[in-house]
Amino acid sequence: MAAAAEVSNRSVILKRHVTGFPTEDDMEVVTAAARVAVPPGSAAVMVKNLYLSCDPYMRSRMTRHLEPSYVPDYVPGEVIPTFGVCKVVESGHPDYKAGDMVWGMTACEEYTLITNPESLFKINHPELPLSYYAGVLGMPGLTAYAGFFDVAKPNKGDYVFVSAASGAVGQLVGQLAKITGCYVVGSAGSDEKVNLLKTKFGFDDAFNYKKEHDLNATLKRCFPEGIDIYFDNVGGAMLDAALLNMRLHGRVAMCGLISQYNLEQPEGVRNLACVVTKRVRMEGFLVTDYFGTYRKFEEETGGHLKEGNITYVEDVAEGIEKVATALVGLFHGHNIGKQLVAVAQD
Amino acid sequence: MAAAAEVSNRSVILKRHVTGFPTEDDMEVVTAAARVAVPPGSAAVMVKNLYLSCDPYMRSRMTRHLEPSYVPDYVPGEVIPTFGVCKVVESGHPDYKAGDMVWGMTACEEYTLITNPESLFKINHPELPLSYYAGVLGMPGLTAYAGFFDVAKPNKGDYVFVSAASGAVGQLVGQLAKITGCYVVGSAGSDEKVNLLKTKFGFDDAFNYKKEHDLNATLKRCFPEGIDIYFDNVGGAMLDAALLNMRLHGRVAMCGLISQYNLEQPEGVRNLACVVTKRVRMEGFLVTDYFGTYRKFEEETGGHLKEGNITYVEDVAEGIEKVATALVGLFHGHNIGKQLVAVAQD
Repeated sequence: MAAAAEVSNRSVILKRHVTGFPTEDDMEVVTAAARVAVPPGSAAVMVKNLYLSCDPYMRSRMTRHLEPSYVPDYVPGEVIPTFGVCKVVESGHPDYKAGDMVWGMTACEEYTLITNPESLFKINHPELPLSYYAGVLGMPGLTAYAGFFDVAKPNKGDYVFVSAASGAVGQLVGQLAKITGCYVVGSAGSDEKVNLLKTKFGFDDAFNYKKEHDLNATLKRCFPEGIDIYFDNVGGAMLDAALLNMRLHGRVAMCGLISQYNLEQPEGVRNLACVVTKRVRMEGFLVTDYFGTYRKFEEETGGHLKEGNITYVEDVAEGIEKVATALVGLFHGHNIGKQLVAVAQD
Repeated sequence: MAAAAEVSNRSVILKRHVTGFPTEDDMEVVTAAARVAVPPGSAAVMVKNLYLSCDPYMRSRMTRHLEPSYVPDYVPGEVIPTFGVCKVVESGHPDYKAGDMVWGMTACEEYTLITNPESLFKINHPELPLSYYAGVLGMPGLTAYAGFFDVAKPNKGDYVFVSAASGAVGQLVGQLAKITGCYVVGSAGSDEKVNLLKTKFGFDDAFNYKKEHDLNATLKRCFPEGIDIYFDNVGGAMLDAALLNMRLHGRVAMCGLISQYNLEQPEGVRNLACVVTKRVRMEGFLVTDYFGTYRKFEEETGGHLKEGNITYVEDVAEGIEKVATALVGLFHGHNIGKQLVAVAQD
């Protein structure tokens, strides 16, 4: 084995646990010399990170939880783990070799030693944009696919409502719903995003929730027959309004609650009586339970992308020094489409 | 046909729509002469009411809803419909004859003309107490059975929590859970009820929620491993505490929200993030969707009752003039076990 190259490895660390909205000052970029090498005898894999993913669930990991959370809290002073698209530069694992393109859990830095390479996924469609493996063909895409098909269980003709509809997950949910023969309405936080939903993603209707004063009335206007499926990315007041508008035997696929992540105390949801009277099923899910089904998803969604049945909008920040801005921006709705950070070209 | 007898028929009418807690003054007993007869050519059935059922869902029907509710609002000045156990005294319907014992939707009065006798159920086990057909073998019993088996989908060894556990539905849920091999804890609103849960119904543990200051801590104490199934009869703060204590892939069978029915505005439930992180399924149901499965339930539960595997506690008020007191008492927890009013012996 040749002597390992020593490189300058820039990393984004969390400086402290966060309460309320995160700020750029909660993170910082540090530089250290690193040996781009797998320790002798180790089955680890050294990767170069090409794209890093910024996702709403990461907010939860910034909090210091008194009891263990569903994902481990980030550790102040350490590099921030995240999903990403990577190139293998050295491998101690028989399933990987230098040059392989993979996606999976890596970290916000230029080079990462992956000590559990079994968690990585090889990229089977390098003819598609590599960045897709941090979005529509990665964790957010599988989230949309599993939540819509396995949790919400759509039928042709269903009335489907998607919140945060132009985001990494929502834009795919809406398009999958259209492919399934559903009527789809999305909500988003700007007129530009609403326009994207209607013109680019083929939603039947969409609205800017920041301009609506009575979400119940808005949903009644958009769904005079009521909602069969609410794909909930936001929780809070929108969930409360959706519950009032569910149809009999409606389903609420609970994917996330981005409206609540930065509050000291979550808002109360008052309309749960509708769950009884309308026989609604509200079901939460996590994408990690579906990683075993990834290949089926990749083939199906990759096919749709190649045939032009599905399109995907990304918001790509350039350079590792943009991670903090990009991540903080998620919680203010600054991103248009899936938020990524491009760290390296190859 | 012999000339119909004319009788004095006492009825309980709702005087006005209700806001907040109902009071006895919201109802009154009126007496009118009635002909105990089915109109010529009609397929209706005239019944004598033996037992009338007082159930929490009736509170919803006392409200004046601006939009149609899941069950029709009661009409001020008219007799209050309710489930009951009845004897057919005259029948215009080929499936019924005088002397048949039935249960189903009747009304708070001595004699009722049932114009949709297809909705009645014949009583197949007259060797059991007739009153059971307003409780453990009637609507509340089927509610418990369907909600526990079809909605909550229990497995042997599951940790099961039941609120309002000594009530008409809860006491059966707890016993079905024990028969299924689950660990069962119930909550109730008095030490007497708690004692009943532990000594009479075989709950593994029980607590008086009125004496607990921190329901989250109480549930942590009762369920150190967490809750697989929460059979929710109350909503509100108890639901919020249960959500914090659900296990992965736990189920909340949402049967009713008696803690909320008399509030001007429902309490907010804040811990819905747990539904996502723990992949919880919250599902509402109504017993009316299960009436088609009644015979299977009747045979199975009737068998358990005859073999002594299941016991049932009733709180029987005597006389139609007690309907208002009994019904109002439900919302203050005055009843111990299933609340009935005995109107006639046979």
